[in-house]
Amino acid sequence: MKIYTRTGDKGQTSLIGGRVDKDSLRVEAYGTMDELNSFVGKAMTELNPEIFTDILEDLEAIQNELFDGGGDLANVMKERHYKLSEEPIEVLEQRIDLLMEEAPPLERFILPGGSPAAATLHIARTIARRAERQTVTLMKAEEEVPAIVQRYLNRLSDYLFVAARIANARVNVPDNEYVRSAKVFRTGKSESKSED
Amino acid sequence: MKIYTRTGDKGQTSLIGGRVDKDSLRVEAYGTMDELNSFVGKAMTELNPEIFTDILEDLEAIQNELFDGGGDLANVMKERHYKLSEEPIEVLEQRIDLLMEEAPPLERFILPGGSPAAATLHIARTIARRAERQTVTLMKAEEEVPAIVQRYLNRLSDYLFVAARIANARVNVPDNEYVRSAKVFRTGKSESKSED
Amino acid sequence: MKIYTRTGDKGQTSLIGGRVDKDSLRVEAYGTMDELNSFVGKAMTELNPEIFTDILEDLEAIQNELFDGGGDLANVMKERHYKLSEEPIEVLEQRIDLLMEEAPPLERFILPGGSPAAATLHIARTIARRAERQTVTLMKAEEEVPAIVQRYLNRLSDYLFVAARIANARVNVPDNEYVRSAKVFRTGKSESKSED
Ligand code: B12
Ligand code: B12
Ligand code: B12
Ligand SMILES: C[C@H]1O[C@@H](n2cnc3c(N)ncnc32)[C@H](O)[C@@H]1O
Ligand SMILES: C[C@H]1O[C@@H](n2cnc3c(N)ncnc32)[C@H](O)[C@@H]1O
Ligand SMILES: C[C@H]1O[C@@H](n2cnc3c(N)ncnc32)[C@H](O)[C@@H]1O
Ligand SMILES: [Mg+2]
Ligand SMILES: [Mg+2]
Ligand SMILES: [Mg+2]
Repeated sequence: MKIYTRTGDKGQTSLIGGRVDKDSLRVEAYGTMDELNSFVGKAMTELNPEIFTDILEDLEAIQNELFDGGGDLANVMKERHYKLSEEPIEVLEQRIDLLMEEAPPLERFILPGGSPAAATLHIARTIARRAERQTVTLMKAEEEVPAIVQRYLNRLSDYLFVAARIANARVNVPDNEYVRSAKVFRTGKSESKSED
Repeated sequence: MKIYTRTGDKGQTSLIGGRVDKDSLRVEAYGTMDELNSFVGKAMTELNPEIFTDILEDLEAIQNELFDGGGDLANVMKERHYKLSEEPIEVLEQRIDLLMEEAPPLERFILPGGSPAAATLHIARTIARRAERQTVTLMKAEEEVPAIVQRYLNRLSDYLFVAARIANARVNVPDNEYVRSAKVFRTGKSESKSED
Repeated sequence: MKIYTRTGDKGQTSLIGGRVDKDSLRVEAYGTMDELNSFVGKAMTELNPEIFTDILEDLEAIQNELFDGGGDLANVMKERHYKLSEEPIEVLEQRIDLLMEEAPPLERFILPGGSPAAATLHIARTIARRAERQTVTLMKAEEEVPAIVQRYLNRLSDYLFVAARIANARVNVPDNEYVRSAKVFRTGKSESKSED
């Protein structure tokens, strides 16, 4: 089998059911999800499987979900069936809630870093946010974009934040605070004012 | 010697033979090739030189070629001689063919990751694709862009895919399949339908 | 506390004193500074604290400064006080000057890589440059952008270059030269011709 087909050598490429310039917003968005997926794969190589069994399970599910969502963005068939559903978002929320209870309390921004895995999870967090931004750009430009992908990426970036904190907490590495941070994280009532 | 010259503090910068805004498409494209080059350098630190002598030789050649191609994109002199030629593309193709034979058979998408080096090679793969996209944007906007750079990046991303697979195979780390993947990789006849 | 507020699920998000689309140039710029900050955090995990005490101190200050500058870009209040000042730029320049004396002489481009920390510092260098480009885009589009952030990022990318060289030099890893490089780094008089 030849992996290279040379058909993309003129700057166009294939979707599922279409053909577009390689720098189209759609390709940009799922290309960034592929980049994100690779950083998730990198973080997995840095997590001790005995201490982080649960996180590693989460991340493997996430890798598959990123393929689902990326494929959905690549799909422009007239009749199409999207692969990413509400369920993975709900699972992410449950996992976030559980891990937040385990993590030390949080009031101020923390400096990204700590253990190797935590540092990579912070990188993945910021790339999830870049993928989210590009999905928003795509949604503003085109009609048929499954909104669930953006919501999934939004929640995923929060999951990766908490996962990074756990990747430090369980090996007793502290999260250092941004020294000039206000108390930016809010609970209870003031939460209703929050927006992101 | 002062490395910083402060001349770029107002948002403009120099090409070889010109001066443009720092966010011009040209600077964006070779700046991303520089980012890619750095990830290639990172992958090299993770490959055991005894097991991966050949891959390390490839990657060092690639680092030099990325400088060639980046410099070509930076060059807007009236009379100019481009550094990147067809030959490195042919060499990449030969290396891909050889390494594909060594790698386990492939039918479905694989989750990026595995060994540390494989994970980083997958990251490099996705950044090569980002660099390719930005080169396409540049080619659509400007006349004098050497098309060979885009073709080189296209082939390089396929090389990096195969290199990632080898980085797992030689240390007996399996590539895990995307669980809901169709049989997306095609051989023989159906290949003619493929496009990328 | 819930880290996820769901308020960003429709593609808009909050600034300090405003609300914009998630893919606005402002969010893009400080989002990339956050990505950069995460790579700085990653490099820190790879530096031996006994050999690189000074660099680690620099990098921790830089992480805080990136929060300062990112927050400044996020701030669109009528009455606002910016956090990033001239001083950190001057400190970066002093540190660059000192580290340049320690590093081996430099005439030609070097291949990014070497030790693990050096490789990651080169990555951070290229992402600082991407953040700089996006800050330039923002400055061209909007009135009220603190120019100091761009200058800071410009100098930071030069600092990260020198830090990468030191991360190799102190552990006796050579910087390999780009084989077809001209003598691109200039001293003394010719320096005045240089621009970046
Ligand atoms: C989307 C896509 C991607 C996405 C996929 C992830 C995602 N979901 O976001 C991304 C961007 C990540 C990607 C990456 C890569 N890709 Co890609 N990708 C595609 C693309 C456009 C669609 C694949 C897909 O998901 N199809 C969805 C399935 C369901 O559709 P389908 O296979 O056509 O199946 C339909 C029917 O054919 C039928 N069917 C399918 N299988 C079967 C089997 C039987 C028995 C029957 C009866 C019916 C049937 O059912 C489906 C009905 O809708 C194809 C090109 C294309 N148009 O096929 C290339 C393609 C598969 N990719 C290719 C390559 C090379 C790659 C990369 C190696 C590129 C690189 N250097 O990085 C990587 C590999 C990534 C990895 N980790 O493995 C090549 C493979 C070349 C080859 N020799 O086969 C293709 C063919 C493009 C090309 N060059 O021509 N890719
Ligand atoms: C393109 C470029 C890059 C590209 C280069 C890679 C690539 N190919 O993609 C990228 C984006 C990667 C890059 C990165 C960096 N760069 Co740069 N780059 C340049 C630029 C614009 C051109 C350099 C070049 O390749 N010239 C091509 C050669 C062939 O041209 P030339 O040197 O002018 O040579 C011609 C003649 O002068 C003559 N010639 C050359 N040498 C000699 C010698 C003799 C004896 C003779 C007779 C003739 C001769 O022959 C050539 C005929 O065309 C220069 C600025 C400029 N306009 O020179 C900055 C420049 C070299 N970069 C600079 C810097 C600081 C950097 C970075 C450290 C920035 C950073 N923080 O990341 C990094 C270092 C990267 C590394 N790994 O080493 C500075 C160096 C400052 C200094 N004190 O010298 C420069 C001068 C820009 C500036 N600030 O003013 N850079
Ligand atoms: C800018 C920003 C960022 C930037 C910050 C860095 C930077 N500087 O570049 C970036 C992009 C990095 C970021 C990242 C994240 N952020 Co943020 N961010 C914000 C934002 C918009 C502003 C925060 C800020 O710096 N405010 C500046 C301070 C000075 O303002 P202030 O807190 O309002 O304080 C003023 C007054 O209230 C008063 N004040 C403040 N504290 C106190 C205390 C007392 C006692 C008194 C009297 C007065 C007072 O003084 C100030 C006067 O101006 C807020 C939303 C918002 N509008 O508040 C979200 C926000 C804090 N972020 C949030 C989240 C979730 C995150 C991330 C986890 C997202 C992710 N998945 O990556 C990460 C965490 C990063 C980390 N490392 O910790 C959430 C927190 C949710 C919650 N439950 O609290 C918020 C509230 C947004 C939201 N979702 O609603 N963020
Ligand atoms: C925590 C803060 O991060 C910013 N924010 C929200 N979504 C994104 C994104 N996809 N990318 C970058 N920044 C984002 C908003 O300013 C929010 O309030
Ligand atoms: C394998 C699939 O990846 C997509 N594709 C092709 N080139 C690029 C690129 N530079 N960046 C991101 N995605 C790309 C196409 O959809 C192709 O079919
Ligand atoms: C060293 C060379 O790098 C280029 N250059 C200057 N600033 C940036 C940036 N932010 N991103 C990418 N490239 C840049 C210019 O061409 C300069 O001359
Ligand atoms: Mg969010
Ligand atoms: Mg391709
Ligand atoms: Mg500069």
